[in-house]
Parts: sequence; C-alpha cells; structure tokens
Amino acid sequence: MRIEVICTGDEVLTGKTINTNFSMISQKLEDVGLAVQWETTVGDDRDNLLLAFQLAGQRADAVIVNGGLGPTVDDLSQEIAAKAAGVELLLDERWVTRMEEYFRSRGRVMPPNNRKQAMLPAGAELIDNPIGTACGFALTIGKARFMFTPGVPREVRRMIDDQVIPRLLSMAGTQSTIFLKRFHSFGLGESRADAMLAGVEALAPEGSVKLGFRAHYPQLETKLAVRGRDLAEVRRQLEPVEAEVRRRLGNFILAEDDQTLEGNLLRTMIERNASLAVVETFTGGQIAARLVPLPDAGKVFRRGAVGLNREDLRRNVGADGQDAASIAAAARQCAGATHGLAVVVDVDEGQDRVEFGGTVHVAIVTAGGVSTRRSRLQGGREWLRLGAIEMGLDCLRRHLAGVPIDERIDFEKSLN
Amino acid sequence: MRIEVICTGDEVLTGKTINTNFSMISQKLEDVGLAVQWETTVGDDRDNLLLAFQLAGQRADAVIVNGGLGPTVDDLSQEIAAKAAGVELLLDERWVTRMEEYFRSRGRVMPPNNRKQAMLPAGAELIDNPIGTACGFALTIGKARFMFTPGVPREVRRMIDDQVIPRLLSMAGTQSTIFLKRFHSFGLGESRADAMLAGVEALAPEGSVKLGFRAHYPQLETKLAVRGRDLAEVRRQLEPVEAEVRRRLGNFILAEDDQTLEGNLLRTMIERNASLAVVETFTGGQIAARLVPLPDAGKVFRRGAVGLNREDLRRNVGADGQDAASIAAAARQCAGATHGLAVVVDVDEGQDRVEFGGTVHVAIVTAGGVSTRRSRLQGGREWLRLGAIEMGLDCLRRHLAGVPIDERIDFEKSLN
Repeated sequence: MRIEVICTGDEVLTGKTINTNFSMISQKLEDVGLAVQWETTVGDDRDNLLLAFQLAGQRADAVIVNGGLGPTVDDLSQEIAAKAAGVELLLDERWVTRMEEYFRSRGRVMPPNNRKQAMLPAGAELIDNPIGTACGFALTIGKARFMFTPGVPREVRRMIDDQVIPRLLSMAGTQSTIFLKRFHSFGLGESRADAMLAGVEALAPEGSVKLGFRAHYPQLETKLAVRGRDLAEVRRQLEPVEAEVRRRLGNFILAEDDQTLEGNLLRTMIERNASLAVVETFTGGQIAARLVPLPDAGKVFRRGAVGLNREDLRRNVGADGQDAASIAAAARQCAGATHGLAVVVDVDEGQDRVEFGGTVHVAIVTAGGVSTRRSRLQGGREWLRLGAIEMGLDCLRRHLAGVPIDERIDFEKSLN
Repeated sequence: MRIEVICTGDEVLTGKTINTNFSMISQKLEDVGLAVQWETTVGDDRDNLLLAFQLAGQRADAVIVNGGLGPTVDDLSQEIAAKAAGVELLLDERWVTRMEEYFRSRGRVMPPNNRKQAMLPAGAELIDNPIGTACGFALTIGKARFMFTPGVPREVRRMIDDQVIPRLLSMAGTQSTIFLKRFHSFGLGESRADAMLAGVEALAPEGSVKLGFRAHYPQLETKLAVRGRDLAEVRRQLEPVEAEVRRRLGNFILAEDDQTLEGNLLRTMIERNASLAVVETFTGGQIAARLVPLPDAGKVFRRGAVGLNREDLRRNVGADGQDAASIAAAARQCAGATHGLAVVVDVDEGQDRVEFGGTVHVAIVTAGGVSTRRSRLQGGREWLRLGAIEMGLDCLRRHLAGVPIDERIDFEKSLN
C-alpha cells in the first residue's frame, strides 16, 4: 500500500514553523508497520494544492493531508478537495451542532466564520475531532483515499491515533491490533543496544514483534511494535520479548512508555518520603529544572544551588571540601534533605570543537553513606552539558533502585 | 521564478529526524525575497527520487536538493541526478584531491568509499563545500536548474548562504546585494509590533526594505530585508528605517542580529565589573542555566539558588523576609555579588489549562537600591515558565540599561 502525506500552509512552507507534524505522523505510522513513501508541502495556494492532490491521487492508495481546515480564508483544504474530487461543498449540520456545543460548553457563542469549518465535500466521510472545531474527513480523489486532518498538533495527533491508523490498517487488510512498547535508556548507543538485543524478535511468533530504535541523545528509545488479532493476543506475543528486553537492557532502563526519568525519580522519592538537595556547576540549573516544574516537585525538592567554580559552591553550601561528595553532603545537611546530589564538571579549556569535553563528578549523599562516579564525556560543549545533566539524574535513579551507579556507558571516554 | 526544494533520506521521511534543514533553507530564501513554492520529501529510493527529480524539473525554474551526497550505498543523489539528466557519472579529480587534502589535514587517510562522493554527473558545475567531503553541484534537469546540497546542517547552511542564494538571485535577474537586519524583543506580540512599525518601510526607496516578523514565544524577531546594488547602497537604504525601528521598539529591543539576551547581559556586566546572584522558584534553575553555559559566565555568575517555596528560599539565602526583594538582597550579600536577581512565581492551583497562570515577582537589588516588578502571566504551565524566565532576564537587562523594568508587556494580564 502506497501512503503519501501532504502538508499545507504558508507557515510550514516558508519555514516559519518547523514541520514537526509530519515527523510525528510518519513515526506513528512506522510504529504500526506502515511506511510513508512520499511527502509534499505546499502553501495556502489554490493551484499548488490542487496539483498536489491530483498527483498524489494518481500515485498513492492513501493520502493524509495535514492543515488547512481552519475558519479563515486562507484555509483551503475542503474547497480544493471538493474541486479535485469534482463534487460540491455542502454544509454538514452535524458538525455545526458539534461546534455550537463546543463553544457553548466554554461559555461562548460560535463566531459566524466557524461555519466554514462544517463545509465538507459532498460524499465525504466525517472523521471525528473530539478536541477542536476543525472537522476531519475522508474522500476519494483519483485512486487514493484522502484523509484530511487539522494542523493543530494535539488535534492531529489524536486523530492519527484514533481515526487514521485504524482506517489505514483496515485498508492494508490488517485485521489486527497494534501495540507499541517503549523502553527509555541512558548510556547506550543505538548500535550497542541493537547488539544487546540480537534475536529477541524471534521469541515471538514470526514477524509479530518488530524491534526499532530512536536515538535522541542523551536518551535512546527502544521500541517493540506488536501486531495481533486483539489485545489479548498482542499481550501474549509481547510478553516473552518484553521480559527479555527488560532483562538484557537491565539497569539501563530508566523509564518505560510515557514515563520520564524525572517523573520516575520524583515518584520514587515521594513513595519513600525522601527529599532532595541538588548542587550543580556547568549544567547551570538544568538538573534542578528537570524536576522543579513537575506538579509534585514541592513534596521532594528542597534546594538547588548553582555555582561556576568549586570555591563558590563550597562556600554557598558551607562544605568542608571542594569535592563533589563534600559539597553534596553539605547541601543535604543545610537543606534538611534525605538526599544530596552534586554534579560538578571540570570543563576543558579552549574553543568548542568535537573533541571538547569534560570530567563529570557525581556524588550522592544520604544518611547511609556516599556514592560517587567520575566520567569523561566529550563531543562539544552542548553534548557535554546534556550528558552531564542526564548522568546526574540517572545516577540518582540508579542509587534509589539499588543498582550500580558507575556502569560504563557508551558516551564516556577512558579516564586512565 | 518558481523554486522547489526536494529533501531526501529515509531518516527524514520516516520522521526519525525532524526536517529542520528545510525550514532553514526556506527561511534563508525568504530573507532575501525569494519564495519556495513546493517541497517534496522522498526516501533513499531510486524510483521515488527519479520521479521527484522529473516532476520538479517539469514545474520549476530552480530546485534545491538536500541530502544523499554521502559516501554510503544509500546515498543516491548523484546517481539519480545523472539518470534524470540522461548523462553519465564521471569522477571529478579536483574533488578527489580536495577530499584527500581534507583527510590529510586531519591526520587521516581517505577511506576508499569516499571516492564515491567525487562521482558527479557529466557537465555538472561544482558547488564548493569548504567544510565537508560532500561535493555540491548544479545540473539542469528538464527546464530547471538543480542545486544539490549535503544533509549535514552546518554544511548546507554554509552552502545556501555562499553558493545557492547568489546563484538564485542571479537567475532571478536581481543584480543586487541582500542584507538582513534583525531586532529581538520580549513583551511584544506580532500584531502589536506590526502596528508600532506601521509605515517604516516607506522611509526607504520603494520596495527596497521589507518588514517581517518571526514569533517564537517569549521572544519576537523583527526583520528588515534590504535589497540594493551593493553593500553601500544597502546601508544607505537601511539606515533611516533601522533608526526608526530602533526608536519605535525602543526599550523592548533586547538584542540585535546574532546577539542574545543572555550574551548581552553577560557582556554588559563584564564591562562594569558586575557580578550576579540569582534566586528562582518555579523556573527551577532555567534562569541560571541561560547564563552559566556561556564561556565567560565565570567572570560574572557567583551563585544560583533554587527552591520551591518561599520559606525554603528564605532559609537558603538567609533572608529576613519571604518577598522577592528580601531574598534577592540576601542572595546578593552572601554571594558577594554586585547584583541580586530574584524571580519568585506564585503558581495557580489545579490542572494545567489555557487559563493556568501565575504571578511573577521580580526583584533586582544592588548597592544602590531595589527595583521590583509584579506581573500576571497565563497560558498554561509551560507558557508561564518560559515567560517568567524571559521576564527575569529582561528586567535585569532593562535595569542595567537604566530604562523602566515595569513597562507593560503584551503577555501579561491585569492584576487589578
């Protein structure tokens, strides 16, 4: 089945807006075993839109169109879809009612120009948008089934999951449910993780589980896409593979699915009535900033301290020495926290470059003792900064889980 | 002149990589008064690449192709370009020599598979890439002039500026130089800035200066694109408009061109031998984190403190009271800094939503006194957080510049 995507809108075409909707759509399709073959971006321009619809209608079996369903005059998707299909635009009363309810529930009256959003090509199949006023719809143009989605990211995301993917899977003749299991890790590169997981797909019936990765330094996402008749079958097929991935990636797994490292840290600390003081140098507040914005942070976070040289830091927290352990201990004590975390980075001198790096010193102090880790990261200033933030948080996660905090990671260089 | 862009590569087509190269290219063209009409993304696939080249060659006058010039077997741009143009691939000895020099200067020997990067379609015009091994080239396919660029962001950025844009301008018959002047501000929405700058374009000879905006909350970028025969003429045309924009946007301008708010703050403080202590709550270290990673931060930054409630913060810095001014004063004193900056946010209760917001209290304390600002921002947790970070830094910038720190901004709500 050939699938194409058409993105519309001057904001995207001129580069004012980076086209993250497209990558989201393509990734979601890939996660369920579908592949986008071709993507086209055109502006809010009748001729180019019409040509894009016609060309895709000649080549593809299914086309996802994103954008152009808004209430303003430059939103042209319905009009051009009708023209390309050779049908009229008709007012869909069901959608007018839905929009009126939408506005009423927010204590507002629907502005007249929103009626335009209920004008659909004759014969179009409505695709529900439960969280906005843009009406999705499906329509055949040429030999392809077109599915029109709104440009608002959270609306299109929801519509792809709930409406578009099931239709595509049914067109592909896949009478199946798809489930995506995800593991997040820090310290593994894609090729090492791939080697560690060699053969895991074979633990499920042939082809039903597909392994994939998405690297976004400093984290790596390991994905298992599972296909089955229903959720029960999916779970049966996934179970042995999931267990084996968890066993092999082991201590490196910092979160699964929609969880995050910082969210898990916070939850664990709340469960244990633990509290935290953080001291950091080169990361400049970014470690604290991963935790503080979370809604429950106030239950755990006691104090953050930022300084650029060890002496400033030492004085700031009233420590005996300038080493990470002394600083973490003093910060813990003066904040009255159960846990003190210090991340002190000795940064290379000179110009930023690929070999630029630094030595990251992590110390975690509790009533029970001190754990430390020392590691050299390099790859440029920004790479070092991102790695040091993640290493600090991940060491704390490992410490709370009772696993070694100094397991060798792929990004570090030998310190000798 | 019709311009199209073709982006190639499985990484982009599958959404693993977000296509920032395209938005960069399109923005750069827009900045010099050129417009992209159509963008196509295809994977590393011979049939789709060939079709994309043929279609664009029928429609466009100029086509920029991005990606597919690497040394590996899945890099297909030269091969398919030759096929589409109906010519052979020939080894370009000049580029082999360039690559050998490139590797030699890095103390390495060129691997054999890099020779593939010097295989160009017969008759292609070489487009220089001074910072990489991928060789750019231009070639006519159909009725369009195609320009092939590498996928590595810094290489394509350089090639667009130095090689592609001059060729496009010359094709467009524009015997002119283009210059882009940029102003960065905080607190102005696009529509207000547009209204404030009504008519400024008329201060330059007709059409030679074009006003534009790029909003990326919390900052707004105001752009003046100037066109002229040479740089001297450009400067003459720009001068009255630039001066008027500076006058009208006035205190809101926080940086120009490639400058940043944090970079300017740091420079100003270094010039005055000033030093800084920062205390923050809900922003969680993000204010400190804007300054600390800068290479010269150590000359200015003395101390950062993060806490989630006022009492923790007060104790942390040993302040007399829980208000922002007391906390800033105490932080300044114990850090031995000339300037104390406190940003304390009273955050709304409850679920995140569009009306979610908070009151931002900013205090700046020096030996000379105390300046404070209180402002309600809303638009969701993240919006509040980003606004509070920028407001804190911008108040300090205003204070150092001797202009009011409490000028009303577009994002704030009335506090009554």
